[in-house]
Amino acid sequence: MSGRLVEELGGCLELLFDLLLAFALAMIVGKLFEELFVRLGLPPVIGDLVAGLILGRSLLQIFPVNDTIEAFAWFGIVLLLFYAGLETKYREFMRSLGLYGAITVGEGLAAFSLGYLVGSLMGYPPKACYFLGAVLEATSISVSVRTLIDIGKLATPEGYAILGVAVLDDLVALIIIVAGTSLIKLGTFSVTQLAIVASKALAFWLAVVLILHHVSTRYMPRVLYAARSPEASVGIVLGLLCALSFLTKFVGLSPLVAAYATGLALSEMYGIRRISDRVRTIALLFSVMFFAFTAAKLDLESALKPEFIPLYVAMIGAAFAGKLLGGGLTSFLVGFPPIAALRIAVGLFPRAEFCIVAAYVGYSGGLFGPEILLAAVMITLVTNLATPPLLKIVFSFGGETPHVEPRWRRRRR
Amino acid sequence: MSGRLVEELGGCLELLFDLLLAFALAMIVGKLFEELFVRLGLPPVIGDLVAGLILGRSLLQIFPVNDTIEAFAWFGIVLLLFYAGLETKYREFMRSLGLYGAITVGEGLAAFSLGYLVGSLMGYPPKACYFLGAVLEATSISVSVRTLIDIGKLATPEGYAILGVAVLDDLVALIIIVAGTSLIKLGTFSVTQLAIVASKALAFWLAVVLILHHVSTRYMPRVLYAARSPEASVGIVLGLLCALSFLTKFVGLSPLVAAYATGLALSEMYGIRRISDRVRTIALLFSVMFFAFTAAKLDLESALKPEFIPLYVAMIGAAFAGKLLGGGLTSFLVGFPPIAALRIAVGLFPRAEFCIVAAYVGYSGGLFGPEILLAAVMITLVTNLATPPLLKIVFSFGGETPHVEPRWRRRRR
Repeated sequence: MSGRLVEELGGCLELLFDLLLAFALAMIVGKLFEELFVRLGLPPVIGDLVAGLILGRSLLQIFPVNDTIEAFAWFGIVLLLFYAGLETKYREFMRSLGLYGAITVGEGLAAFSLGYLVGSLMGYPPKACYFLGAVLEATSISVSVRTLIDIGKLATPEGYAILGVAVLDDLVALIIIVAGTSLIKLGTFSVTQLAIVASKALAFWLAVVLILHHVSTRYMPRVLYAARSPEASVGIVLGLLCALSFLTKFVGLSPLVAAYATGLALSEMYGIRRISDRVRTIALLFSVMFFAFTAAKLDLESALKPEFIPLYVAMIGAAFAGKLLGGGLTSFLVGFPPIAALRIAVGLFPRAEFCIVAAYVGYSGGLFGPEILLAAVMITLVTNLATPPLLKIVFSFGGETPHVEPRWRRRRR
Repeated sequence: MSGRLVEELGGCLELLFDLLLAFALAMIVGKLFEELFVRLGLPPVIGDLVAGLILGRSLLQIFPVNDTIEAFAWFGIVLLLFYAGLETKYREFMRSLGLYGAITVGEGLAAFSLGYLVGSLMGYPPKACYFLGAVLEATSISVSVRTLIDIGKLATPEGYAILGVAVLDDLVALIIIVAGTSLIKLGTFSVTQLAIVASKALAFWLAVVLILHHVSTRYMPRVLYAARSPEASVGIVLGLLCALSFLTKFVGLSPLVAAYATGLALSEMYGIRRISDRVRTIALLFSVMFFAFTAAKLDLESALKPEFIPLYVAMIGAAFAGKLLGGGLTSFLVGFPPIAALRIAVGLFPRAEFCIVAAYVGYSGGLFGPEILLAAVMITLVTNLATPPLLKIVFSFGGETPHVEPRWRRRRR
């Protein structure tokens, strides 16, 4: 063992220095832009992306891009999805499965199909088209919620519908991305194979959620009580998250599916508030790394070509059209008045985290070039900029949907 | 860019799975052993080491050992040193520089020299001997403090001396390790070169502490106030830590020196309590990775050979003898009565984090085999097991040093 090379320490320290640099840049520059965009009423993720674009391959080229940083970035997104699960309340989620599920299927299907269609028209192969669908499917409504709070319309039938659909939409987006990840490994595009993976992901997800929720509400508080210190509690919960995420390796799934499921399963456990608060800090900080890294890896030069302009226009158009058609029509069909259906559809416009993750997985798997990643960044930016004024407009005419039970509930009786 | 290999996603995910597995093992098994050893009155780090030994190369071989995990582990120790700095109060540190500094020099020199001597006698080359000295030098008095609290003797002249010396000892140990890291890169053992690096490390350390303390007490609260969310505050502070740690790369020092300095400089900033609390969670969790990884990398089979028994016995003996002679004698010389000097020396017996870090840096740099790493683990275990009963004994006879000003203070007037 004494023959170990002196250089090894240097090599490992080199990686550590890369990690320190990436973290420093993400925290200081990323957070700076986050604060800036939050003040402009935009979701913080846009700040991370802009910081990454400036620091990365396209411009300054000082953000380190290597496998270790990438693994670290992925670790951040696992933590973020875990936190997203923790914030989605279990009972609320289960309650919204019925009616909001129908709207989710409608808006998801429309958005996904439009993305797939745009891909086909632009000449992308089926697998790439699948990911273009995934990019357009995922909703991220933080900006809508914020706007609804600002204009005092969150506690309306439309507001509740937007919230409920967004929660379910997370799961749908996740299953689509996870199934797509397996798709990358396959030689050809196979709908059967895709259906198998999606079912497997859903089954795994359901199993983790149901079993862990059952076990955790019964036994975890006792374990956590025995752990005494808050660090130990957070450690055990994060250990559980990492263990379950690691298990996905053996069923051929992405760890993201386990992360979200673990969070949701633990979301109503006794004592989770205190833990969730600490997880939040870690998750929000580490996920900055993911978004900054994603944007840093993006080579703008090869994506900012005139030949891609039709693609960008089509993708952004489809991002609005898919939610408008799918979300609006399905909401109307399940019983909302037309104006309420329009409001719900507009509220579902914004994309953020999942949109970027979907584009990144496809890009990273070699299905398409950086242009789709850039398209995802553009979609995130445009939808988030456009939604607040649009929401204010659709809520300003047609009167309020009365604060009585909405039509669909009366009908269903 | 579309020619990117499909396997790339697989490769990065492979590293992510390794990271998840390592984190899961460290959190669940490491924390389990931590809780066990804490209940036995031992420092938690021993639990991490035992977990690593069981899961690592020596036994179960399921803990992943690669460069990414190592960089992550180092990141954990950077965070831990930062937190250690945050917990060392700036003013307290500056106050204890005088008299306790003299005791620290005495006990540090004696412990270091004995380690160096043992190495020479066992036939190790000078560079390796240097690290053997470093292993024995570092004090980690959490067990002593805990015991002193238990027997109600912390607020005694001896208790204060133990605390003050331990604080300064951290800096000495750090400088020794940092200088040693540079030593590894050099061709031969050069005392001049060593003195240069040690001075540089001390100068860098002092510069960071003084400048950052000055700047942070004046401007940081305003920056943190503007950041609004607690995540943003923690992010900015950690970003600063990573940025300063990264800078050490250009002055040829280890990032550890910057981590400790940054923590100390920020330790009395307005609003640091709230941030420190969150940093604590992250630091304690991530440092578990370091100790578990260190032990996991250790190959017991090549260290547990009969020929190493004299080494182990000598190292453990020297661990006690160095502090007893150096700490005891210097305390007596600066004015403590003999029994008080003995008590101080016994309180300085325990080793923990720095001892392992020193051994790991030398081992990782190829200066010696796993036997020294194992010796460090043994020293940590034995000193922590022996100190509580020994402290109780030395405090049980000779009467209390009266709660008046100790002799040395009266003398100095």
